[in-house]
Amino acid sequence: MFSAAIAAADPMSRVPEFLPSNKDRPLVVVGAGKASARMAQAVEAHWQGPLSGIVVTRYGHSVDCDHIEILEAAHPVPDQAGIRATERILQLVSDLQKADQCLVLISGGGSALLTAPVPEITFAEKQQINYELLASGAAIHEINCVRKHLSRVKGGRLAAAAAPAKVISLLISDVPGDDPATIASGPTVGDPSSLQDAREVLERYEINPPDSIRRALREDRNETPSPDDPKLATAKTHVIAAPQQSLQAAANVASDNGVTPMILGDAIEGEAREMGKVMAGIAQQVRRNNLPEPAPCVLISGGESTVTIQGEGRGGRNVEFLLSLTQELHGTSDIFALAADTDGIDGIEEVAGAVSGPDTLSRAHQLGLSASEYLKNNDAHTFFEALGDQVITGPTLTNVNDFRAILIV
Amino acid sequence: MFSAAIAAADPMSRVPEFLPSNKDRPLVVVGAGKASARMAQAVEAHWQGPLSGIVVTRYGHSVDCDHIEILEAAHPVPDQAGIRATERILQLVSDLQKADQCLVLISGGGSALLTAPVPEITFAEKQQINYELLASGAAIHEINCVRKHLSRVKGGRLAAAAAPAKVISLLISDVPGDDPATIASGPTVGDPSSLQDAREVLERYEINPPDSIRRALREDRNETPSPDDPKLATAKTHVIAAPQQSLQAAANVASDNGVTPMILGDAIEGEAREMGKVMAGIAQQVRRNNLPEPAPCVLISGGESTVTIQGEGRGGRNVEFLLSLTQELHGTSDIFALAADTDGIDGIEEVAGAVSGPDTLSRAHQLGLSASEYLKNNDAHTFFEALGDQVITGPTLTNVNDFRAILIV
Repeated sequence: MFSAAIAAADPMSRVPEFLPSNKDRPLVVVGAGKASARMAQAVEAHWQGPLSGIVVTRYGHSVDCDHIEILEAAHPVPDQAGIRATERILQLVSDLQKADQCLVLISGGGSALLTAPVPEITFAEKQQINYELLASGAAIHEINCVRKHLSRVKGGRLAAAAAPAKVISLLISDVPGDDPATIASGPTVGDPSSLQDAREVLERYEINPPDSIRRALREDRNETPSPDDPKLATAKTHVIAAPQQSLQAAANVASDNGVTPMILGDAIEGEAREMGKVMAGIAQQVRRNNLPEPAPCVLISGGESTVTIQGEGRGGRNVEFLLSLTQELHGTSDIFALAADTDGIDGIEEVAGAVSGPDTLSRAHQLGLSASEYLKNNDAHTFFEALGDQVITGPTLTNVNDFRAILIV
Repeated sequence: MFSAAIAAADPMSRVPEFLPSNKDRPLVVVGAGKASARMAQAVEAHWQGPLSGIVVTRYGHSVDCDHIEILEAAHPVPDQAGIRATERILQLVSDLQKADQCLVLISGGGSALLTAPVPEITFAEKQQINYELLASGAAIHEINCVRKHLSRVKGGRLAAAAAPAKVISLLISDVPGDDPATIASGPTVGDPSSLQDAREVLERYEINPPDSIRRALREDRNETPSPDDPKLATAKTHVIAAPQQSLQAAANVASDNGVTPMILGDAIEGEAREMGKVMAGIAQQVRRNNLPEPAPCVLISGGESTVTIQGEGRGGRNVEFLLSLTQELHGTSDIFALAADTDGIDGIEEVAGAVSGPDTLSRAHQLGLSASEYLKNNDAHTFFEALGDQVITGPTLTNVNDFRAILIV
């Protein structure tokens, strides 16, 4: 099921049908994200006409391309390599003419990889205001409003820079609701918010920014293009892969094997260990009462849980969820689970996730491992590594967020 | 739906079918819990033969009875009134003969209301070891093992005291799994754990009890009766109401009105505000994707969430869940919810819970109320009171734990 979920989001199979039909005109490709190199590779494999371009991906996520240059930079915290890559991409699209076709390949992680502060502010100032916004209690759409107005590439400004060329964006979604304006901060999608809105957010949350940021938020040239901006009139956007599609692919595997799938949600959020308790309660309901569906049944969900770090262990949100779930189930028979990140990296290690079952706690006990201690220390990777129950895929070169499956047989 | 859930657990309708068939012999009634007075009233209304007895309930939960004496005591922290009531109940059942019938009425809260420390220890020592066990990281069944061996009434000892009379127990469950040995610490149910187990728990968690407790846990007379103890051979136990039954009654109301019910679980646990996020994700899935079931659909769940108190507001676990859910849904249209405690008391106030809908946040905004601030301060009762959206039932005189319903129309 996990493999099917990843395969359903594989750029190699998803990109071809969305390529432009006009193969006579050159195609200029730009892009950013964990999947962007693989997306570029898919373009090279299927596009018949003239081709060039630059995409930036996370360190370690490159694949070989012949015509499209692949750059690497840091994620989730941006670095100078990302800034240089973004400058080159902006330069490339700025030279395009009306007859040109520009294909933009966007996936999760693109927001950090595409970094171009407005001229009034430094990279450090942009980082600082980010931290203050995150700590302020502002809602994510408010934070993004400020971010977009301090960037030369987010909030539709990449597409505006490419005008008058025809811009086609292919997006792999890792965000709830799959809103193109939210995926990687929407570099090719018009932004309904204004500089005035951005100033009001800072006021509302009593954030006192340096003068440079105040100046930047009063400069008309830093306004983002609105959704009806003429520069974006010919831009097209396709979400080519999304969490729900991948969960559906996993559900099909279950159905094909006589197991009833229940897709609980593609955008389920919450503290990972608490989500583990809630999901354990639902799994027990299936097992004890054959509700909401009779066993054999599999509870499938995606989205992005969060981890409030209190310990010093090696963890990730998926394995933390799984360890909590496993502990909560107390070895209940006939319940098995997998939780993993579809990008192959749960937390900061190249481990996608792990599996658990009714004997997980007893095997851990035999090894002298206390599940509650490992959970307390946010050390679930170490726990599942000791059991030999890790799921290791390497970078999958796509990203449709978390994948969780709880099978009640 | 909430009314149907409460009605399905009403002692007046649930008790009659479980009364003993032999109406010639006197019936001696004892009991403890939030529902015990109402259960006694139901016995009086339906039992035709000779009748007497004593039950203890929470302050404010009395109802009029003619033959059964109703006592009141403190819950959740026991008081001297509870200790005195328990002595009287133990005295009453100790005088029973083989020909007598003893009906024991047990419901949630009974564990605190029935308090009888073994003779070696004081009430204060019992409280102290309870606190240490809760803080030690011991599992709930380990904590209960020690508790039962320091009590003259828990872990089957009430039934043993009533021997050789025939003991019939009627239980209203508020615990996950509805295990009679767990409901109110199982005063009439054999206990598989031993004094030796209790000593090992203290050792395992490095708890250093006073000498009095060490002595108590070595006294054979403090051993709890095992499930095959001859004294319990004729004892019968009936769970007459339970969370799942009440959720099913609510589900029937939905079905009768053309709304598909999904009972997610009768024992769902976790931090209330995180559960709100997870449930919001499931509700959004129904609304956006008509999965796992198409709208109109109602997500029903029970169990007991927890609240880690960080603020100083007036809250309860159900309204805290509801406020988090409401915030997470950002005013999404067509989603309405109710969360309330089936005993009518969410937290420490006589407010059962509250309702919310798509306009809750905007109405709050108009009143100058910030949902996130009220949530942060654990002040959800104040929030919903200001909106006029509280659910107030008064004590319902039953208790099958939390009730949550999220309707997607």
